Amino acid sequence: MTLIGPENPDQARLLRRLRDDGARSRVELADALGLNRARFIAEVDRLTSQGLVETAGPAASRGGRRSSLLRVAGQVRFGAVAVSAGRLDVALTDGELAVLARLGEPVDVRGGPEALVGRAVELLGKLRAEVGLSRLTGVGVALPAPVAVPEGAAVSSPALPGWHQFPVRDAIAAELGCPVQVDNDANVMALGELHAGTGRAFDDFLYVKLGSAIGCGLVLGGALYRGATSGAGDIGHLRLTDDGPLCDCGNTGCLEAYCGDGALVREALAAAHGSRSAALADRVAEAGTLTAADVARAATAGDPTAQTLVRDGARRLGQVLVGLVSFFNPAIVIIGGAAPGIGPVLLAEIRGVVYRRSTPLATGSMPIVLSDLDERAALVGAARLISDHVFAAR
Amino acid sequence: MTLIGPENPDQARLLRRLRDDGARSRVELADALGLNRARFIAEVDRLTSQGLVETAGPAASRGGRRSSLLRVAGQVRFGAVAVSAGRLDVALTDGELAVLARLGEPVDVRGGPEALVGRAVELLGKLRAEVGLSRLTGVGVALPAPVAVPEGAAVSSPALPGWHQFPVRDAIAAELGCPVQVDNDANVMALGELHAGTGRAFDDFLYVKLGSAIGCGLVLGGALYRGATSGAGDIGHLRLTDDGPLCDCGNTGCLEAYCGDGALVREALAAAHGSRSAALADRVAEAGTLTAADVARAATAGDPTAQTLVRDGARRLGQVLVGLVSFFNPAIVIIGGAAPGIGPVLLAEIRGVVYRRSTPLATGSMPIVLSDLDERAALVGAARLISDHVFAAR
Repeated sequence: MTLIGPENPDQARLLRRLRDDGARSRVELADALGLNRARFIAEVDRLTSQGLVETAGPAASRGGRRSSLLRVAGQVRFGAVAVSAGRLDVALTDGELAVLARLGEPVDVRGGPEALVGRAVELLGKLRAEVGLSRLTGVGVALPAPVAVPEGAAVSSPALPGWHQFPVRDAIAAELGCPVQVDNDANVMALGELHAGTGRAFDDFLYVKLGSAIGCGLVLGGALYRGATSGAGDIGHLRLTDDGPLCDCGNTGCLEAYCGDGALVREALAAAHGSRSAALADRVAEAGTLTAADVARAATAGDPTAQTLVRDGARRLGQVLVGLVSFFNPAIVIIGGAAPGIGPVLLAEIRGVVYRRSTPLATGSMPIVLSDLDERAALVGAARLISDHVFAAR
Repeated sequence: MTLIGPENPDQARLLRRLRDDGARSRVELADALGLNRARFIAEVDRLTSQGLVETAGPAASRGGRRSSLLRVAGQVRFGAVAVSAGRLDVALTDGELAVLARLGEPVDVRGGPEALVGRAVELLGKLRAEVGLSRLTGVGVALPAPVAVPEGAAVSSPALPGWHQFPVRDAIAAELGCPVQVDNDANVMALGELHAGTGRAFDDFLYVKLGSAIGCGLVLGGALYRGATSGAGDIGHLRLTDDGPLCDCGNTGCLEAYCGDGALVREALAAAHGSRSAALADRVAEAGTLTAADVARAATAGDPTAQTLVRDGARRLGQVLVGLVSFFNPAIVIIGGAAPGIGPVLLAEIRGVVYRRSTPLATGSMPIVLSDLDERAALVGAARLISDHVFAAR
């Protein structure tokens, strides 16, 4: 059966509401959508005959005639693919984007797009076999690079050499025979927050993704805002200074060169070798090198040098956030991708800078919080990405 | 007759389309709105009976049956009020927001809100008498301060002492007995650009207002974006440094303290007194002091010191724009409020900074241009502001 999808905006609204709120009674749904009885029945019939919606039993009585519950049909199943610098994760979700099964493994994205796309398709195949699923309704993909969304391809990026203009969307769609949507990881994680995280309660928020690459996702009026050329939120290579540290992108003084994981590790190695931190030196002696998680652990354990490194990076990020927050006036800032345990040190510094320097109207009551979704943000977000596409009127 | 306004989203879309595109044939409108014949006729009848829409004669034949033209009714008349630090301008517009008559005069906003609101109402009364108009459909107001839009009141601002929480919207509405909407000048000027300026061709743009106060208006997806607490675009008091020049707001290092008109004049006076510019010193000897327009004239005439001052301010603004452009990825940046003649020097410097430092995806083909609307931006924008309110479904 070829998926046609919703035929008009009312059908699309109905599907998205069932996805976001779960099973609902017919009466409640018709009211919420502002549709009269005849129209509502007609729209539900069309969605049911397409296998997108199904009845889920009787609803609790509201006094009058008994109503039945509707939900997204059980055969609606989304695939989610989340690529990061060193990992590939895939998941299957139901129509409400709950994760049914997941698999992940370390990968080296520098091996190029063909190998990685092939492996993602294989892992999705394994998951489908596991749950006995013959076909996917659609697949969402998060890439750790800027993405030209209309083309479904990554744009040149130091993190993904060889991926420039590789047609990720079309390659996966050709393998799986279903709709595929691709976006950058910060945008996808913001969608994950919108669906299942703290962002669920807010229409306008800013999601900041830390890690080896730094990016932002902007949710405006309850939807992801991508900008004129899919570049909104690409703050990692903002140049803070003309003469700062060298960045992977070849420029100097980028935000990422100050507070990406690579910068943190570089500074921490220098501190270890320069005998400025016994904790970091011990770890180097033990493991041969350091990771961002090592620095986070040392900072959490109270090592003053590691704490200073984390604070220095957080301060730079805070200075950039001051401008973004004044400009965009979000209801909340959500920070994800931070190494485990590092949150309190990081947040204290970022909040200090933002609250001290921002305009009062923008920050008077604006919370800055850590994401509580962690790596699930990208998987749920990838499912949300493709569901927004499939659940849109043609 | 009490104005009810559109009763549903289709009526609102119809009115806005007539406002934005001018008179259109019934056939064309029904097609554009995707309404069937019966529905379209019913909606037009309701709007006509409310005095919002009227027939404007026969449409050019498209082959089949002759169609008639519709337009916003001639009795729809908006008032526009634009307050700046030293001037009050008011205008009347028709339903397509063309200015029918205008009046303006120098004022001192530090005299407080009651006097100024009273004077604005008087001037609107004069204009109404001039064109023989008994009642206004609504009034839009631009204030040179942050505005809490839901309350229709200015928020504390150094430019408007005594205006904090004064109910501008309700005070004018009580005098004139019509709907009133209030917003800050940068937002209103962005709406003017969207309706009648370069911004008309773009869905996502950033409008930067220079002058004694500096602000931004953000247009996203063809509509003004105000943020969670009406603070989006308030960049004037972004702190660029902790130890910069003192700002009117009492803090140090604000963007405005670097490149507002006040900063430009302060630096120019220092240059004149320090014998670093003969042109500026001559002007001080002649007029006793300097204005931003004097500095602009000296820069345009080739005075190197004046040019350096303009460039220094523009560079600071450019550095802020780098972040905003990377973050928001607009299709175009429009700069308004610059002193006459100063444009080329200003633009060259801003473009230099933005194109050199921004991320390629955001700025690859993004133009940075000067507004060609000048002071009309605020009046057309104020009419647009109130028309968006009146032409919205209740």
